[in-house]
Amino acid sequence: MPRNAVFVCVVDPGVGGDRPVMVLYADDKIYVGPGNGLFEIIARRAGTYKATRIIWRPAHLSPSFHGRDLFAPVAAALARGEGVETAGLTADVDDGAWRRPDWSDDLAQVIYLDHYGNSMAGLRAATLTPDQAVVVDGHVLGRARTFGDVAPGQAFWYENANGLVEIAVNQGSAVNKLNLTLGSDIALP
Amino acid sequence: MPRNAVFVCVVDPGVGGDRPVMVLYADDKIYVGPGNGLFEIIARRAGTYKATRIIWRPAHLSPSFHGRDLFAPVAAALARGEGVETAGLTADVDDGAWRRPDWSDDLAQVIYLDHYGNSMAGLRAATLTPDQAVVVDGHVLGRARTFGDVAPGQAFWYENANGLVEIAVNQGSAVNKLNLTLGSDIALP
Amino acid sequence: MPRNAVFVCVVDPGVGGDRPVMVLYADDKIYVGPGNGLFEIIARRAGTYKATRIIWRPAHLSPSFHGRDLFAPVAAALARGEGVETAGLTADVDDGAWRRPDWSDDLAQVIYLDHYGNSMAGLRAATLTPDQAVVVDGHVLGRARTFGDVAPGQAFWYENANGLVEIAVNQGSAVNKLNLTLGSDIALP
Repeated sequence: MPRNAVFVCVVDPGVGGDRPVMVLYADDKIYVGPGNGLFEIIARRAGTYKATRIIWRPAHLSPSFHGRDLFAPVAAALARGEGVETAGLTADVDDGAWRRPDWSDDLAQVIYLDHYGNSMAGLRAATLTPDQAVVVDGHVLGRARTFGDVAPGQAFWYENANGLVEIAVNQGSAVNKLNLTLGSDIALP
Repeated sequence: MPRNAVFVCVVDPGVGGDRPVMVLYADDKIYVGPGNGLFEIIARRAGTYKATRIIWRPAHLSPSFHGRDLFAPVAAALARGEGVETAGLTADVDDGAWRRPDWSDDLAQVIYLDHYGNSMAGLRAATLTPDQAVVVDGHVLGRARTFGDVAPGQAFWYENANGLVEIAVNQGSAVNKLNLTLGSDIALP
Repeated sequence: MPRNAVFVCVVDPGVGGDRPVMVLYADDKIYVGPGNGLFEIIARRAGTYKATRIIWRPAHLSPSFHGRDLFAPVAAALARGEGVETAGLTADVDDGAWRRPDWSDDLAQVIYLDHYGNSMAGLRAATLTPDQAVVVDGHVLGRARTFGDVAPGQAFWYENANGLVEIAVNQGSAVNKLNLTLGSDIALP
């Protein structure tokens, strides 16, 4: 993404409640969304960051779709290249309520299943040793570099293009072969 | 959507048959599609509208994909800002065959299920009283303003961001909890 | 698609292995992707074509996502309207390793199922006689011009808007009615 890209971020089960609405400037990117922990990892890994709480609200604000009614207009204002004040957004100082210092850096569980049956874990491959095996559904899986390095039908794990541990089957579905669902544990023996 | 936005509308089980092809100018928007009832509610709720039947056909017209071959070229011509005649589209006067005056204004059924398990009814929330309960799958559901106003796992209904009755479960799936499918009845006791 | 459109094509089970990376100039279009047979039919049906093997690699190349890391940058360079050499892409002469002359022109199987329950075969309708019946799951299906030409609930086949044989049910799901899956046989009695 280019410098000063603005991201509208919506994982917001508390929409319409009292969680803060915020802008996070982290390194050379700008994030707009709810202050419910969604930006914790971004801030934790940023070189520099600054958070601002947004008090501004649109004239018509639905209680359940702040992505459309609130975050998007804020992002559009910032995308013009202006700061929060210049963009006419009433803001307040950051009270840090959006931080979650107790949250772990990685999550050894399946966090995403794709259409093909591959499954991504919340676990950075760089935190594992190069020859680390993982255990999923009672199967011990070795590491491979890419799909074609194992036999068709064989399950393996590899560092995916986002740097995360991904469980896959060459020309097959890891979801089906290993009974994976969201939240399945990835054990490191 | 901006003024003079042109919508290509395709719900067209009679594609390739003799239903009319039409342009509806309703308030400050323009709609292109089949005259099979799809535009009935738009016209009924518009301040002003005018319909035109399109006789023009492209040189190559597939019998099953008029969205691509017919509606899109008509819409593109109109999107240049010209009227039907200026755009070179042979047209005919509106005979009203696209109207469906006997169709109801609302439909007390599930009409849409989203990926998360929320379900939308064809029922405008404004037609219900503020404390109206609804009955779905034998469960009496109260109204809430937004997800976080009920306990996790609790089912409720709320006015969604389109103004419709939506059945949801806070941090859960209403589709699973209430066995919802397209067409499930929403009863108003 | 317009003249000189550049297509990034990714069906690439051998990603990260030793299959070639290539550009195919076929008629007035440009294709970028793996030389694994993906371009065989395009070349076979083109009036004229020329293939170039791409040796250039980006500084950072993931072993599993060449669509992002390799094909897209090559396509972007070519989309500026330059040839391979002018775009700074190290290339090599075509050794023809990407051809698959033994592959058939058509495949009498279901190759695609859509959301509505229609299913497309890898079979050009023009290769069948106008009154050809097809047999799917033990059902003999006649040809129709479009959905509305058969009764609601009736299964039929028709030439779809891509020129392929498509199995459908008027206002219903052929997938459900005929137990279709990817790879189901389409027999021509």
